[in-house]
Amino acid sequence: MVDIYMDNAAGTRLLDEVFEEMVPFFNKEFGNPSSIHTAGKKPKEAVELARERVAALIGAQPKEIYFTSCGSESNNFAIKGTAWAGIKKGRHIVVSEIDHQSVLYSARALSRSGWEVTTVGVDNKGFVDTDEITAAIREDTVVVSITHASNEIGTIEPIKEIATRVKDKGIPFHTDAVQTAGVIPVNVDELGVDMLSLSANSFYGPKGAAAMYIREGIRVFSLIDGGIQERGRRAGNENVPAIVGLGKSSEIAMRDMDYRIATTIKLRDRLMNGFEAAISKVTVNGDRKKRLPGNVHISIEAIEGESMLFSLAGQGVMAASGSSCADKALKSSHVLKAIGCDPALANSSILFTLGFENTEAEVEKVIEVLPPIVEKLRSFSPLWNG
Amino acid sequence: MVDIYMDNAAGTRLLDEVFEEMVPFFNKEFGNPSSIHTAGKKPKEAVELARERVAALIGAQPKEIYFTSCGSESNNFAIKGTAWAGIKKGRHIVVSEIDHQSVLYSARALSRSGWEVTTVGVDNKGFVDTDEITAAIREDTVVVSITHASNEIGTIEPIKEIATRVKDKGIPFHTDAVQTAGVIPVNVDELGVDMLSLSANSFYGPKGAAAMYIREGIRVFSLIDGGIQERGRRAGNENVPAIVGLGKSSEIAMRDMDYRIATTIKLRDRLMNGFEAAISKVTVNGDRKKRLPGNVHISIEAIEGESMLFSLAGQGVMAASGSSCADKALKSSHVLKAIGCDPALANSSILFTLGFENTEAEVEKVIEVLPPIVEKLRSFSPLWNG
Repeated sequence: MVDIYMDNAAGTRLLDEVFEEMVPFFNKEFGNPSSIHTAGKKPKEAVELARERVAALIGAQPKEIYFTSCGSESNNFAIKGTAWAGIKKGRHIVVSEIDHQSVLYSARALSRSGWEVTTVGVDNKGFVDTDEITAAIREDTVVVSITHASNEIGTIEPIKEIATRVKDKGIPFHTDAVQTAGVIPVNVDELGVDMLSLSANSFYGPKGAAAMYIREGIRVFSLIDGGIQERGRRAGNENVPAIVGLGKSSEIAMRDMDYRIATTIKLRDRLMNGFEAAISKVTVNGDRKKRLPGNVHISIEAIEGESMLFSLAGQGVMAASGSSCADKALKSSHVLKAIGCDPALANSSILFTLGFENTEAEVEKVIEVLPPIVEKLRSFSPLWNG
Repeated sequence: MVDIYMDNAAGTRLLDEVFEEMVPFFNKEFGNPSSIHTAGKKPKEAVELARERVAALIGAQPKEIYFTSCGSESNNFAIKGTAWAGIKKGRHIVVSEIDHQSVLYSARALSRSGWEVTTVGVDNKGFVDTDEITAAIREDTVVVSITHASNEIGTIEPIKEIATRVKDKGIPFHTDAVQTAGVIPVNVDELGVDMLSLSANSFYGPKGAAAMYIREGIRVFSLIDGGIQERGRRAGNENVPAIVGLGKSSEIAMRDMDYRIATTIKLRDRLMNGFEAAISKVTVNGDRKKRLPGNVHISIEAIEGESMLFSLAGQGVMAASGSSCADKALKSSHVLKAIGCDPALANSSILFTLGFENTEAEVEKVIEVLPPIVEKLRSFSPLWNG
């Protein structure tokens, strides 16, 4: 049995090329970048090279990049940091139903301390309504945050259009680009965003390596207060090897992006079409075109997603039921609820996230393997009357 | 010229033994521990083994350990998390002048949002006055945080005594043990603490790997909200290799602690005595006995610490002027100010932090190298009239 990994949204494989560049910074160049002696010199230079590479990936200036430990930290930093910094102006923030838990729960945490949160809805494809965002903005709004793309159903939001509206009102705008930066073209000026979260583990970089872009002039308070690292905006000794890996994976992502996208989209479309041809009553969730290159999120009537996952895992196919951040006990995804998916159908969902390392043979194998699993599970299902 | 590294407080060297255990989790076992398929199995097991090892190091239960990205994050989590969780009781917190920037600036951030902060003082050795802490506690106090040992002058605080007093008043007590856990014996029950911050990079583990101990039943809100990782208390995909490294370095620290302490204290005392014998008007800051095993913090009258550092670096000796977290432009350390050190003398300070990997030969070399540097710098100094 050969393992087929189709759970890239939960984490991509670290490339050897990236790891090799990280290695010296573990036990050879282990100095603290803030040290003034020679042990700090190479780590410091490596951190600044990484900052340039991340900046280049998203069309930012290096001084607008702040390293963090994960995408969730970046999202908390953006939401809470702008909320705290804007406290004199007001206590209202706008997010969307399709945002990641780390955005939604940051907003919820603020709401316990007196902030008001407006959560705008999405249509049945997962698109946020730009007019609804405009309408939600008030005098006392201090930040608007909308995800660039859902980590579940893969829908890519019209961020440029949203950002224009939000900026017209003079409100700082953040996008969670953890699923897009390093995967599809992301340029902070073209998108018109003030803040953007990204994470290396989405594009073949290491875990524990993420960043926040903060446009020069935007006021954001620290989430992690303390030392002077990251120009006083994110305390804590720099995780040098992880930062080096983030930089290297950014460089490679820029270099290989076109190839990766083309390869992945081809595999994705074949997988979607293959499922639709071979399985009855299957629904592709999200938009068919404006979706992440590797995302195949489907609902298969009358069977539990988890049962399918276990059966697939038994044949070496690794997929997911939704976000790896969601509680397994909470069967319904907030994203599927947001797009109006019937609860029963939501529980029948399965998420394949492909990467450029997947092969056509793997895709054909999965198209071959899933239908008999579905047939078998349906034969036991009281919900099935096909 | 052979490099002599005596800046272990800014970061210890990652042990090969630790790195080797981390390696498979970079690009082989790269799965997400939250995945239900096989790719998540070994990472999940590795994270839980690390949790057991960290718990063993400090005498806690594994379920009381929460992984974070750095000591500063743990300190922010403890201070802000208990403050937010205790908001119905009150908005007063107690810290000390000798605490780390990440504690003091967390408190300062809260003070901007309506919390009151009492900062208790220290004596000329850096010891917090237990009576002053007791007196500072009010009806509305929600947390007391005192460092276990200063990362600058190395003074080890009477945490057990302080904790008893704080617990008598029913207030949650946190200690920043980033400089002590894995270095000297630390047991949460013997100390009587409710929360404790620790970091792998203080005991030959990797950067980006830290933890917070939270005694069962203590209410702490999340600093990083989002997914269900760390039982909902710290969102973000787990940095598996870093966590594995923290676990392994905890295990080794327990195994080798007695040897490391004995070795390091011997080197420390030789270095202190050697400086005192060879250099006139030198002051050892902090307490001579109740101090971190590797800490040698001295002030040398009439010369700038930075000048000494550069001259030492020129001869391959790597030391520090104080905390690596402090702004180089801010010449005066808050800790030296707190112990009543004369500002001129504070600027004449230099910090050597030894580890078990330092040798007697290195110590003798530094004792030989520093006096002529001092003599030369003093010959140029308008402050010197010796």
